[in-house]
Amino acid sequence: MKAIAVYEGGDEPVVVEKPRPEPAAGEALVRTLRVGVDGTDHEVIAGAHGEPPAGEDHLVLGHEAVGVVVDPNGTRFAVGDVVAPTVRRPPDGGNEYFARGEPDMAPSGAYHERGIVGAHGFMAEYFTSPEAFLVDVPPALAEWGFLVEPVSITEKAVEQAFTSRSAFEWTPESVLVLGNGSLGLLTAAMLDDTFDRVYCLGRRERPDPTIDVIESIGATYVNSTKTPVSAVPDVYEPVDFVFEATGYPPHAFESIDALAPNGVAALLGVPGDMNVEIDAGRLHRELVLHNKALIGSVNSGYEHFEAAVDSLGSLSVSLLSDLVTGVYPLESFEAAFVDDDTTIKTAIEFAAYEER
Amino acid sequence: MKAIAVYEGGDEPVVVEKPRPEPAAGEALVRTLRVGVDGTDHEVIAGAHGEPPAGEDHLVLGHEAVGVVVDPNGTRFAVGDVVAPTVRRPPDGGNEYFARGEPDMAPSGAYHERGIVGAHGFMAEYFTSPEAFLVDVPPALAEWGFLVEPVSITEKAVEQAFTSRSAFEWTPESVLVLGNGSLGLLTAAMLDDTFDRVYCLGRRERPDPTIDVIESIGATYVNSTKTPVSAVPDVYEPVDFVFEATGYPPHAFESIDALAPNGVAALLGVPGDMNVEIDAGRLHRELVLHNKALIGSVNSGYEHFEAAVDSLGSLSVSLLSDLVTGVYPLESFEAAFVDDDTTIKTAIEFAAYEER
Repeated sequence: MKAIAVYEGGDEPVVVEKPRPEPAAGEALVRTLRVGVDGTDHEVIAGAHGEPPAGEDHLVLGHEAVGVVVDPNGTRFAVGDVVAPTVRRPPDGGNEYFARGEPDMAPSGAYHERGIVGAHGFMAEYFTSPEAFLVDVPPALAEWGFLVEPVSITEKAVEQAFTSRSAFEWTPESVLVLGNGSLGLLTAAMLDDTFDRVYCLGRRERPDPTIDVIESIGATYVNSTKTPVSAVPDVYEPVDFVFEATGYPPHAFESIDALAPNGVAALLGVPGDMNVEIDAGRLHRELVLHNKALIGSVNSGYEHFEAAVDSLGSLSVSLLSDLVTGVYPLESFEAAFVDDDTTIKTAIEFAAYEER
Repeated sequence: MKAIAVYEGGDEPVVVEKPRPEPAAGEALVRTLRVGVDGTDHEVIAGAHGEPPAGEDHLVLGHEAVGVVVDPNGTRFAVGDVVAPTVRRPPDGGNEYFARGEPDMAPSGAYHERGIVGAHGFMAEYFTSPEAFLVDVPPALAEWGFLVEPVSITEKAVEQAFTSRSAFEWTPESVLVLGNGSLGLLTAAMLDDTFDRVYCLGRRERPDPTIDVIESIGATYVNSTKTPVSAVPDVYEPVDFVFEATGYPPHAFESIDALAPNGVAALLGVPGDMNVEIDAGRLHRELVLHNKALIGSVNSGYEHFEAAVDSLGSLSVSLLSDLVTGVYPLESFEAAFVDDDTTIKTAIEFAAYEER
């Protein structure tokens, strides 16, 4: 079968030929439908993050997948079931984090991530997975199921942030999403039901497809080149919730300024190194005197994947169509890795879904 | 009656003569037993924080009090009941935060603080308080009841921090208390039951009474002049919980380095202004990739006062005796405001408790 991989020392994805995997006991064999491309893939390709499985010279990419079970192999699935795989796997047969369904809380070294760290990903015509790491996707979402994984990241971060406010009565009305990439836009759309007012911040000028998406969901676009994060309270309003998806370190700390009293910022974007001089005394004081919180969040657990399936189903087809700016067949996979101002979200299609 | 106040523009506490207050409907009249002195009092005296009631030229100090009801005035109390008053009061008859018992979550402007901002404090021979703002204290704790308020601050911060970790299974084993002032020491002693290993950080060299207290409870003293906060993981261990009670801004942000994966830092110390260059990218990344959190916390609610009464009752008399290094009568109140290396916690005694 064909797969898309990056070689150690390589700086671009290539098609490789690999044997079709055989499901082990407890594993199902899945025919891959589509696999999304995201920023982490670009980091892995650039060599900034991730590593191949031990002893191998290449890593099959892809951690945002949807597929169809072709060999249940004794698992609870039936042939034709649509599934999305989770990403983390126990490196040595299992540990306490996986045992309790919280692989997302495992520390470094206690997990592999398929397509990222230590385990091959899903950009292949077939993959196998233990039953416990496959989430049911309704057939109606088969085409969009590669978005279950990114949406699950939001589910977890929102859960963590809201939980941190659960010792008192918190009735948030406004949210500021930092970042107008696909995750920021998906999140803005998902939070539109929960919040009265949704702001989404980016660096783009009009005309721009992400600004169109933001406005199509009734949210307000904040241009960070004119309104920095810390100025949001003056120009718009102090917000109850910040969702930081850019990975730009000043944003993480300026979020404290953007928050209303008792507000919380969820931090998801993964930054590189950067020294910054901050107004540490004032920010520290703001955190304390106004009961504010910063909550880091990475990855997601099985229940977040399940919640993501529900959330994805509640989004309109027109929104999803606007977000997914390109789905490319294997023969032209390179196009899925192009990231320009007209690109929001891309995926590679390994097989078309055929309803049974 | 006599009270201890600071005049606007003044820089020291003085004894003033004021009329004994008359309890309004719903208020009890309380004979003050003892009132503690803390860092906030010193800030108020220095003019760095707080303000007198509207239209007045002085503020009666004191927000850590215990007293005996002398006129229940129709409230649920009986003559002789020992009570500790809460600190925040609604400025204009009430608001939603007070209505739901969460005055600690009220934003600036939605509260006065007795002895600090906009309302006279408890350093007087008598005070009145609405029934709802008085917490029962067992007679056995009458002498230590002025510690209920500071302990309640810890109760709230710990509740907020632990709540933020409640969406997953968190079994913390180690805590680092930043600050060896009285609140840090009380907190270290309180957390000794919950955590297997307690560290308490200060800047003092031996011999020192705070180090003696730390070691008497079986905790480990961390000398910050030799082991900075960010070096704690290497020298001791990454800790699950940080309790920041110094108000020193670099500590708040270095806490991120001190934490183990999935850990949380509660920030309580109130800092002044300070610009600091931080390794923002790495700290931001640590928050995200290891699910860490920073939780600001200020003040406390009625339920935290009730929890504080229980916690205070579980501490040994010898510990409390070591912590309270001076209790001074009104005639020598100035001694209670001296803060040197032999001082841990002081209080002013307005009346001795006489069991009925």
